[in-house]
Amino acid sequence: MPSTAERLAALRERFTVPSHLGQAMALLSWDQSTHMPPGGAEARGRQMSTLARLMHQHVTDPALVELVESLEGDDLQGDDGALLRETRRQLDRALKIPPELIVAMTRQRVRGRQVWEQARKADDFAAFAPELRTAIDLARQQAAALDDSKPAYDVLHDLYERDSSAEKVAAVFDPLRGELVELFGAIRDSGVRPDTSVLRREFAEAGQEAFAVETVKAMGYDFNRGRIDRTAHPFATTIGPGDVRITTRYQRNFLPSALFGTIHEAGHGMYNQNLPLEHADTPLGSSVSLAVHESQSRMWENLIGRSHAFWQGAYGRLRATFPGVLDDVPLDDFVAAINDVRPSLIRVEADEVTYHLHVMLRFELERALVDGSLAVDDLPGAWREKSRELLGIEPPDDRDGCLQDVHWSWGMFGYFPTYSLGTLMSVQLWEAMGRDLGDLEALVRAGDFAPILAWLVEHVHRHGSRYSPQDLLERATGAQLSAEPYLRYARAKYGALYRLG
Amino acid sequence: MPSTAERLAALRERFTVPSHLGQAMALLSWDQSTHMPPGGAEARGRQMSTLARLMHQHVTDPALVELVESLEGDDLQGDDGALLRETRRQLDRALKIPPELIVAMTRQRVRGRQVWEQARKADDFAAFAPELRTAIDLARQQAAALDDSKPAYDVLHDLYERDSSAEKVAAVFDPLRGELVELFGAIRDSGVRPDTSVLRREFAEAGQEAFAVETVKAMGYDFNRGRIDRTAHPFATTIGPGDVRITTRYQRNFLPSALFGTIHEAGHGMYNQNLPLEHADTPLGSSVSLAVHESQSRMWENLIGRSHAFWQGAYGRLRATFPGVLDDVPLDDFVAAINDVRPSLIRVEADEVTYHLHVMLRFELERALVDGSLAVDDLPGAWREKSRELLGIEPPDDRDGCLQDVHWSWGMFGYFPTYSLGTLMSVQLWEAMGRDLGDLEALVRAGDFAPILAWLVEHVHRHGSRYSPQDLLERATGAQLSAEPYLRYARAKYGALYRLG
Repeated sequence: MPSTAERLAALRERFTVPSHLGQAMALLSWDQSTHMPPGGAEARGRQMSTLARLMHQHVTDPALVELVESLEGDDLQGDDGALLRETRRQLDRALKIPPELIVAMTRQRVRGRQVWEQARKADDFAAFAPELRTAIDLARQQAAALDDSKPAYDVLHDLYERDSSAEKVAAVFDPLRGELVELFGAIRDSGVRPDTSVLRREFAEAGQEAFAVETVKAMGYDFNRGRIDRTAHPFATTIGPGDVRITTRYQRNFLPSALFGTIHEAGHGMYNQNLPLEHADTPLGSSVSLAVHESQSRMWENLIGRSHAFWQGAYGRLRATFPGVLDDVPLDDFVAAINDVRPSLIRVEADEVTYHLHVMLRFELERALVDGSLAVDDLPGAWREKSRELLGIEPPDDRDGCLQDVHWSWGMFGYFPTYSLGTLMSVQLWEAMGRDLGDLEALVRAGDFAPILAWLVEHVHRHGSRYSPQDLLERATGAQLSAEPYLRYARAKYGALYRLG
Repeated sequence: MPSTAERLAALRERFTVPSHLGQAMALLSWDQSTHMPPGGAEARGRQMSTLARLMHQHVTDPALVELVESLEGDDLQGDDGALLRETRRQLDRALKIPPELIVAMTRQRVRGRQVWEQARKADDFAAFAPELRTAIDLARQQAAALDDSKPAYDVLHDLYERDSSAEKVAAVFDPLRGELVELFGAIRDSGVRPDTSVLRREFAEAGQEAFAVETVKAMGYDFNRGRIDRTAHPFATTIGPGDVRITTRYQRNFLPSALFGTIHEAGHGMYNQNLPLEHADTPLGSSVSLAVHESQSRMWENLIGRSHAFWQGAYGRLRATFPGVLDDVPLDDFVAAINDVRPSLIRVEADEVTYHLHVMLRFELERALVDGSLAVDDLPGAWREKSRELLGIEPPDDRDGCLQDVHWSWGMFGYFPTYSLGTLMSVQLWEAMGRDLGDLEALVRAGDFAPILAWLVEHVHRHGSRYSPQDLLERATGAQLSAEPYLRYARAKYGALYRLG
């Protein structure tokens, strides 16, 4: 038998093909959203599915399985052990799901998404309901194939956030929920109402683009290894090491959309740009979880981008970018406007306080859909009820209610909680960073982002998938995930903005 | 044994993977030229070579070989026979060249091109000479592997223009050469000197782009199945059926570059947009040869785009696009300027008459390089001598002499003649089209391009690789390839422009 080192080298070599196929698929997908002419759509679907099939063949190659099994007898440590663990994780997923189920899920995704788009446009939940039922059924089959000893929701959630579970999520969400409802109530009762109309003035797109580019460049998003394009739905994607792209969208009469959207995606992008190059093209070189990813995007977007300190440094530049437009708006009013807290219908436009309530609503409903305690037909009513309970408002239709997000149509159940978990992580990391770097506000005010990015690279990015999200967080912050840092932050920030007790 | 129909279906199915891999590679390559950030370059090379390797595995799969051999016993006719013939052609190429040679050639291409770029910039032929020697050596090995019974140059030329040979090329070029030198001499002696400075006025890029887009759209390039991007070196590429893109470049102070460049690439693009969809993803669905491809691009660029009739219809629109810029330039002077014939150093900027002389120069030199009768060290001197002999001028340096084209650095020998062959074909096709459609000038003048494109689709595009280039041409025009139609065209057009006896 070849030596451990030889077999490890062989293992690394085996990732080349699936990794490069994955990168080609990332480009096919990026191009589909950014530049592809309409006539290319049909062939693009076929190209993607051919490459996905090839990739599946390579990640389930019996020779790879044999290699992994043999290395599992070697008690590998450190990075080698982590690589083997990550490989096993991928392997199990690829091997345990029957090919017929993969085909059925892939078809259902395409179909589900199409029907969802039309149903949403027409505000016709009944048209989408059969697709949702099928998607839930397939998701349950997927969960059963992966691990039938656990609740289906836990297995699905683990696809996005490893080692998490509905119970763990609930343990964090349940106390948070009461605190948030209380804070939200206090804000509503405060009588303070920032004037958000200033954000809806005329902001020329060229100016928005220039300002956003300059901002994320200063933060550390590297345009030598990235670029920005326009898409209907912004995203970040990795085409290869050294090529991490983001997208954004511009609204002439709504400044926050492109501004915070670009900073958010650049946060994702910086994580991917600083993953460990020495593990590129292996599972160890990837980001570790969606929550960790979201901790990066939301830190840059909210803790930095929506902070008073940031705008002390940047407001002059913003005013100069749009001559005359904001001259009558003092800094404090601008900061109040971009941090306006109010009940809203749409998750992606929600403020930092109510955002979690939107996520909790989805978490509770999708968990009930998957375990069968909520019937698909009862979803619209349940959504309205929860919305009233958590946010104090009810959507006037399903379009802005239970049809608003793409996730379920795409067969993704268990994804939503990662948005909140990541947000909580972002503040916990921020507190730890403050202990190491001292006055973070001073750095942000001065636009001196290099130490901040360096700390994130050191404690998060460069580890790739070496540690579990929990271990990563504990190593970086000395503590398990907790909502306390976030609550401290929210109470202080919004207490000041809304002059609460 | 499965039935013929079953084995044919199996054969078609086998093209899916290599075809989709090829399309993904086309996108990776397009992206590299258009949008990729610099940091992506290193990984891009690795991605391309992984996909190329996978593709090679699939097109040389022993099961495919067995299938082809079995079908070759079946005496297939029509499209089935053509598919089998094309498959065998690809198979032989893929199987006969040893993998080590493919690797060596691929490496040499990357290296050769890099060194060529620097050598060209520095006007340092000596730096490039060793790379050229290696490239020639590898090309000879490639030719020997493919067919050692023929002269190496013929085997290499056949890679680009099937069933052609140096002898056949020479049989066309030799008489053409004398006629061209004579016509060129008459033009020089005519005393007519169009004022080409009008083309070097200020033409805003936005206007150039709008005019070029409107022009190729009117000609029939379908933006629903295509798009235009900017690159240093314009090209057309097929990302998939329904997705055929072109690129162009703009020079503020030189109108013809983007204008005729875009029309040229759109000519290539229209061919690919109208290939037979029912054979997409099989070798039968591809364009048949480089000369046939060039016949399409040069027909739209020159026979239409540089014709007096076209500008009778389009000059008003051009003037309106650049208000004031061409008001003092009468139509006839503009048409004379874009058809100016004069000795020049650079092939890609040459007029319709001297263009062939540039190609002949390269054909004669590359043939001598490959058969060893010209030593690499003697190339610069031989180039100057031939240039003086054919064009009446000598390049002042190698940068604009033997270092001007990328082809040899890329290991492509036998490619150049296809440019002239395609040009000759374009006029032969045009004459035949005139016999079918009547007054082509009237159509062009009226901007009524639909019948022209329809004729090309009917006689060229829709056949894909069904017929050899020779058969295709004979079916479309009733004759073998001949320089006579081109000479009739050139004598008439330039006789009028230069008021020759």
